[in-house]
Amino acid sequence: MIKRYPTKKIYVGDVAVGGDAPISTQSMTYSNTHDVVATLEQINRLHFAGADIVRVAVPDMRDALALKSIKEQISLPLVADIHYNYKLALIAAESVDCIRFNPGNIGEKSRIKEIVKACQERSLPIRIGVNSGSLEKEFENRYGQTHEGMVASAEYNIKYLEDLGFSDIKISLKASDVGRTVDAYRMLRPKNNYPFHLGVTEAGTLFHATVKSSIGLGTLLLDGIGDTMRISITGELEEEIKVARAILKDSGAMPDGLNIISCPTCGRIEADLVTAVAEIERRTAHIKTPLNVSVMGCVVNAIGEAAHADVAIAYGKGKGLVMVKGEVVANLDEDALVDRFVSEVEEMAERVD
Amino acid sequence: MIKRYPTKKIYVGDVAVGGDAPISTQSMTYSNTHDVVATLEQINRLHFAGADIVRVAVPDMRDALALKSIKEQISLPLVADIHYNYKLALIAAESVDCIRFNPGNIGEKSRIKEIVKACQERSLPIRIGVNSGSLEKEFENRYGQTHEGMVASAEYNIKYLEDLGFSDIKISLKASDVGRTVDAYRMLRPKNNYPFHLGVTEAGTLFHATVKSSIGLGTLLLDGIGDTMRISITGELEEEIKVARAILKDSGAMPDGLNIISCPTCGRIEADLVTAVAEIERRTAHIKTPLNVSVMGCVVNAIGEAAHADVAIAYGKGKGLVMVKGEVVANLDEDALVDRFVSEVEEMAERVD
Repeated sequence: MIKRYPTKKIYVGDVAVGGDAPISTQSMTYSNTHDVVATLEQINRLHFAGADIVRVAVPDMRDALALKSIKEQISLPLVADIHYNYKLALIAAESVDCIRFNPGNIGEKSRIKEIVKACQERSLPIRIGVNSGSLEKEFENRYGQTHEGMVASAEYNIKYLEDLGFSDIKISLKASDVGRTVDAYRMLRPKNNYPFHLGVTEAGTLFHATVKSSIGLGTLLLDGIGDTMRISITGELEEEIKVARAILKDSGAMPDGLNIISCPTCGRIEADLVTAVAEIERRTAHIKTPLNVSVMGCVVNAIGEAAHADVAIAYGKGKGLVMVKGEVVANLDEDALVDRFVSEVEEMAERVD
Repeated sequence: MIKRYPTKKIYVGDVAVGGDAPISTQSMTYSNTHDVVATLEQINRLHFAGADIVRVAVPDMRDALALKSIKEQISLPLVADIHYNYKLALIAAESVDCIRFNPGNIGEKSRIKEIVKACQERSLPIRIGVNSGSLEKEFENRYGQTHEGMVASAEYNIKYLEDLGFSDIKISLKASDVGRTVDAYRMLRPKNNYPFHLGVTEAGTLFHATVKSSIGLGTLLLDGIGDTMRISITGELEEEIKVARAILKDSGAMPDGLNIISCPTCGRIEADLVTAVAEIERRTAHIKTPLNVSVMGCVVNAIGEAAHADVAIAYGKGKGLVMVKGEVVANLDEDALVDRFVSEVEEMAERVD
């Protein structure tokens, strides 16, 4: 089990972030926020995809003014994403559940002070969202686009908020470079106990964004770092949530449904494993109970994996074993194995629930 | 840049593994190895997909005897995968470039001694391939299926080979659990300088195998650990190589072609970025020169990213900038940007080559 870094628990609407709260997933709509119908449609899509929190861009006053109507029509916590213009944050604070600002482009500290005051009055948390690509000039000049510069920016702004008596803070330190992202979060983690919002930013299209995000966020999650996360994909909303949930599950940070252990290609395989595992994935996709299952094509690791699996198949020549908690429960012809396996999985999932 | 752990350089055929050698990728055929025609066809597929090394299963004597004919007809280095029956290794050693044995199932140490002798006579390296699912009984009993048990098995077998005067060794420590895999490699790494063959084993079908392998191998690569790797996918050969190469590129371990930095979905985006980036990926797929490019949909991070990109697009409303090394080279209508961008990329790739 991964030991999570102990962080302060804050609330984004009714969703806890940090402390013992589950690691939440979030994404961002790409409609014009002031197009309320389109924005609501995208928020609903994210809701159905399993997002815990949704964020919307607020590039101008029309968008800020639309937030009230949006908030009234959704149940997901709503975060307003603010760049450049602090006045948009002041309007947004009247309606949303959290303000994210980018310290690199808000300008004078007095403006941040006004954002903090607006959030204090309404008990809203703030995300200090540092991006490697838009650091404050002073930190960029001193450190370049490095993880040290990102951490210096975050620390400076944390201190500024703390000095104003504000501590409902979460922090992100996103870079488009995976290594720099990891270095930044690792460097800042021991210096405070605020919850961290993880992300590798501008990670590209689906395949490479999946790989980059899995590397960066997976590395941090294995370290016990991370309280909420957003995957960046030049693509569709549902993909971001799907990848986020897979990283949480496959890193071991948040078990969810079946963890399927199955052999790679190899000349020892005694069955059409690709077809069998695809069928198992499809027929068990509805199960939410965390179970470890193994589907192995030959004897080399089959018994060892089955010993630690909740339910397992070990294929032999034309036949195979179905095992439950390491015990053989059936010795069947190959074409009967998947049916029996799925029924054992369903039965166990019901028992565990 | 990632600082790699300094390892001993060994040779698998003419492919160097460890030391300053590029991190190599490998996969495994799933034909019956004794079906020489089918095996050659799969080895050719792996060759064209970009594999550096190929491994074949050798479950029985027919397979061992087929290796000579296979080896004569291929140019990729050939590894024989041996479980249970050490005699198969003795036959295989007459033809292949490396023997992989699983210490958990070879049995008496005297058998390993014979494998070592056969490899010594032909100057072949050996991979000690420890799997969490098939540890030697003594280590499984003492440590359970843990990373400590895997490391104990590896250390015991390394010592045994060293005592026989053998040191052309590479080591793998694969578990189906991502965290356990990472823990095992990290624990063993400081204890010797043999090259490591990385893999998360039995990682499932394409999507989850991509996520699990990216997390596990990416974490290790960022640590500077890893000299060669195999991705385990219940799927097709080409997918394993594609994912391996993406992990090497996206972790920053081995730059390769275009690293595309592009925005996620967001209400600030001023263009059809998904279509533009997909077109850019397609039209630049042939470029092997490592270049960082950014394609950004709004101004927030566009200039910051462009400043560090070799070539960049920053979209505005209906228009946009093409930038080279941080300098604006063109201000064009939206539909002319991709063409200009691609020609700048092609020109730079030629110049760098």
